[in-house]
Amino acid sequence: MVRRIGRKPVEELDPLVDSVLGPHVPPMATVMPGEVVEVETWDALTKVTNPVTGPLYVEGAEPGDALSVEILKIDLPEQGTTAIIPGFGALEGWLRQLESRRKISEIREGKIHYVTDHGETLEIEADPFIGTIGVSPASEAITTLSPGRHGGNMDCPDIRPGNTLMLPVFRPGALFGLGDVHAVQGDGEVCGVAVEVPAVITMRFGVEKGRGIGWPRIESPEEIMTVGSARPLEDAARIAFRELVDWMASDYGWDKLDAYMFLSLVARARIAQIVDPLYTVVAKLHKRYLGK
Amino acid sequence: MVRRIGRKPVEELDPLVDSVLGPHVPPMATVMPGEVVEVETWDALTKVTNPVTGPLYVEGAEPGDALSVEILKIDLPEQGTTAIIPGFGALEGWLRQLESRRKISEIREGKIHYVTDHGETLEIEADPFIGTIGVSPASEAITTLSPGRHGGNMDCPDIRPGNTLMLPVFRPGALFGLGDVHAVQGDGEVCGVAVEVPAVITMRFGVEKGRGIGWPRIESPEEIMTVGSARPLEDAARIAFRELVDWMASDYGWDKLDAYMFLSLVARARIAQIVDPLYTVVAKLHKRYLGK
Amino acid sequence: MVRRIGRKPVEELDPLVDSVLGPHVPPMATVMPGEVVEVETWDALTKVTNPVTGPLYVEGAEPGDALSVEILKIDLPEQGTTAIIPGFGALEGWLRQLESRRKISEIREGKIHYVTDHGETLEIEADPFIGTIGVSPASEAITTLSPGRHGGNMDCPDIRPGNTLMLPVFRPGALFGLGDVHAVQGDGEVCGVAVEVPAVITMRFGVEKGRGIGWPRIESPEEIMTVGSARPLEDAARIAFRELVDWMASDYGWDKLDAYMFLSLVARARIAQIVDPLYTVVAKLHKRYLGK
Amino acid sequence: MVRRIGRKPVEELDPLVDSVLGPHVPPMATVMPGEVVEVETWDALTKVTNPVTGPLYVEGAEPGDALSVEILKIDLPEQGTTAIIPGFGALEGWLRQLESRRKISEIREGKIHYVTDHGETLEIEADPFIGTIGVSPASEAITTLSPGRHGGNMDCPDIRPGNTLMLPVFRPGALFGLGDVHAVQGDGEVCGVAVEVPAVITMRFGVEKGRGIGWPRIESPEEIMTVGSARPLEDAARIAFRELVDWMASDYGWDKLDAYMFLSLVARARIAQIVDPLYTVVAKLHKRYLGK
Repeated sequence: MVRRIGRKPVEELDPLVDSVLGPHVPPMATVMPGEVVEVETWDALTKVTNPVTGPLYVEGAEPGDALSVEILKIDLPEQGTTAIIPGFGALEGWLRQLESRRKISEIREGKIHYVTDHGETLEIEADPFIGTIGVSPASEAITTLSPGRHGGNMDCPDIRPGNTLMLPVFRPGALFGLGDVHAVQGDGEVCGVAVEVPAVITMRFGVEKGRGIGWPRIESPEEIMTVGSARPLEDAARIAFRELVDWMASDYGWDKLDAYMFLSLVARARIAQIVDPLYTVVAKLHKRYLGK
Repeated sequence: MVRRIGRKPVEELDPLVDSVLGPHVPPMATVMPGEVVEVETWDALTKVTNPVTGPLYVEGAEPGDALSVEILKIDLPEQGTTAIIPGFGALEGWLRQLESRRKISEIREGKIHYVTDHGETLEIEADPFIGTIGVSPASEAITTLSPGRHGGNMDCPDIRPGNTLMLPVFRPGALFGLGDVHAVQGDGEVCGVAVEVPAVITMRFGVEKGRGIGWPRIESPEEIMTVGSARPLEDAARIAFRELVDWMASDYGWDKLDAYMFLSLVARARIAQIVDPLYTVVAKLHKRYLGK
Repeated sequence: MVRRIGRKPVEELDPLVDSVLGPHVPPMATVMPGEVVEVETWDALTKVTNPVTGPLYVEGAEPGDALSVEILKIDLPEQGTTAIIPGFGALEGWLRQLESRRKISEIREGKIHYVTDHGETLEIEADPFIGTIGVSPASEAITTLSPGRHGGNMDCPDIRPGNTLMLPVFRPGALFGLGDVHAVQGDGEVCGVAVEVPAVITMRFGVEKGRGIGWPRIESPEEIMTVGSARPLEDAARIAFRELVDWMASDYGWDKLDAYMFLSLVARARIAQIVDPLYTVVAKLHKRYLGK
Repeated sequence: MVRRIGRKPVEELDPLVDSVLGPHVPPMATVMPGEVVEVETWDALTKVTNPVTGPLYVEGAEPGDALSVEILKIDLPEQGTTAIIPGFGALEGWLRQLESRRKISEIREGKIHYVTDHGETLEIEADPFIGTIGVSPASEAITTLSPGRHGGNMDCPDIRPGNTLMLPVFRPGALFGLGDVHAVQGDGEVCGVAVEVPAVITMRFGVEKGRGIGWPRIESPEEIMTVGSARPLEDAARIAFRELVDWMASDYGWDKLDAYMFLSLVARARIAQIVDPLYTVVAKLHKRYLGK
């Protein structure tokens, strides 16, 4: 039977504890490498800003290691929320008359039912993923609104069932937290909000000793991926591509400049989001090019 | 029989004529709306900087119209060139010891054969497209290295056979030019160079009277797409998304803020390139969401 | 007699305590509004990253207030340090062959004696200021390397004797800290390091109840100034100018658009630094334009 | 007697000729090195976009040379215009309800009389300079709205009487043009418009053979200055600082890394403007540090 880690009652949520990833918050539970757990999460529009469930202390994780998180399953609720929040969103100042909006969409049998203002109901295939997932930085406590080297609010649809996320470890036990599941999201998350849902995530933890990665990485069955977060957006892309070059060189025997040229021919890149305090890009390489 | 428009002999190429898109260059040929033509192009690494074949004067095109260019076919040669050019490329200053490199890859039966420095030959599926394609600006002559409202060096893989590009018209006859075909390119074109080839492109022109679009647009059988070019990269994305919102509103009856929220759920975006004087992003919406 | 607040012994410095501004660190001392204190600070090149002396709990300061800090005097030591740190600095990747450098300059009678590599000794007028000075954010613990709404590593030469800095208060007691004195610094702090010194700062604290400012502000006898920090640099400038418009409107009776036009004619702006995690710009208006 | 070069009648202004700097426009006059001329200019708010007077063919100027322009005097008219143009300006999207505005200020005895909306008349010391001044690029025709390597719309208050501007030469005769005088301007030119005036400028031309500078430079009696234009703004600053390092190394015997450290202590930088297609920064070094 899988252990379940519940979310706090909403009235106990505290921004100093639940809206940051940092070294000061005492762990709420300890998990073992190899253990499968189910974690309940809040949606990002809850009472406090984007609360995460955590910190989880991962036994054996030490600074300099990599934490791996295999996403096995995400259970969605029956509806999700989309919104326009003036002062937030990629087209703030670019579209006239931004005003507050909120739209609830039903989720049934893996489909989101979006009712347009012009009266159509459009079905969107659900493609759930974890929007905010990360570890404690070395000394900072970073708002769960922001992504970074430590993971955080990357809003990256590739952090989805079937894939494995790797995060650098900066503190003993990693001090892992997660939340902000999206039932579906477009590239860029342009209005700043996706289909926001509370959820239950099934995952398995692992620790790779001494694997000192600089930024988050993702593996799917087909691709290796690196995640960079920065402003301006081109710097997020540069970080992601540089990390991908480094990965090709360290693990797959590529000359760095050859890897750089090759990525210019075959890389894929996703603009994860352009709405958070730092912007996020994911760079991807198909494994068919990596030999055995 | 299809009319063929040849490229100039290399020794006649002149940067003032062939490396700019502008109102001062006399047209080399006139084409009719509805006419199918084959155009020969140079690759970007020719004697002068990124030469285009043109200008073609499109009969009937006037400022305020949109020029449509349906890409029917691209014939590739038997090899293409990739290079690292120090001082150019997205990771300039981010990777140590950048040095000049040049690699020739054979192209056979729709596959590019890339020989890595570690001795493997990797097959890449060719996916040819037109890197530089545009019209004359109203009064400027813009280098063919740069993209912009007028099209130009967008390096966008969606400008490929089967798709139609629409460009705003600023000068009588549009004064259209094209070149810089890539046999394949990754998102971002990170080292600044793809698989550069001379090519023969078959295309059909059209004029949409009075359709005053602000930036280039692309239609594929499945998607509508908008192209924005700017620095920093997020501004390129903002332009593309705003133009997509406008298109949804003007042609498909969407409320603009509803379109904005919906794109936050289902849009796709491509980082076309982050190496040219302006960076380029393509925003995409699947036609399944657009009604009939 | 003035109370002196000493710096910690170097061996007790701890990055979780001394290299962040945040709500988790217990105050090292309490100060009263109106009280004059002398505070000893470390230089930024000490054992831990850019340590600050603090937190000081300012009696009576509550969220929504503004903390004012009047800088009365800065005592300099007899030498200071300048350095090039590869991977850091505004021209990283823009100048060839960056290598580690360190240069000690003597400070005598208000002059810095810089010995050039070509053998000259150049005298620079000392103009000491506080590089890092701020309060605790509401819930985050932010590295002392970064500036922000809370102040922090603004590296702004206008935070100097004779001037008063105002900071928003986010936590009870403000939880104020400071360090990183520069004996002199150029606009931009381009190599990432100025003339770094430990110092003793004499200052007077005040609390303005209910004065909810959004970003740091500075007053000199001649000017009002606002400080914005962001990336890219133009956003730092936009924040600073918008805050200056707001200040002119709220305190001096200007129409906002009229203030905007007027600043276009007479504003001064300083690029404080382009080397830290966010960049900093100071916008300035002479008081002669503000009536009595 | 000084030769006077008149501006075109307004009804003859043509955007293809007067709103670009480029190689296609036939020179309107030839000037000799050493010759003093008076040139009449239009203001930027004339019928066509920011018209320049020119091109002037400077006898003897060849690609690879530097053109020097000594600004001797600027004669102002009796009034100037300031405006808010929605869609333009640094705080577009940052201030609510931007609306079109226009304000005329009288200019008398070297003072601009600005009447505020709250009923005061404020006197601003006039400090006239040339906003748009440049040469033809090698093959492009660049709008006079944009700055660049060729000069153009730098909106830099240091291009003022008493100072000398140096520009790289790309075409035979340089093909020099100028306009857009501002009676005064604040750093950043935040609303996008200064006190815009037609004017008469007295200047002397010179040609420095073979002095291949990369970007515009300015000398005042006290300072050497370099001008960089780019987006984002930090890249404009990086260009200006790198050019200043290069100048210190090539002409004054500095080691480049030593120059880099020294500028970190004493450089001054001006945000010239953050409103044009590229943004402009001027980096400055006092001549007292440069030996004899």
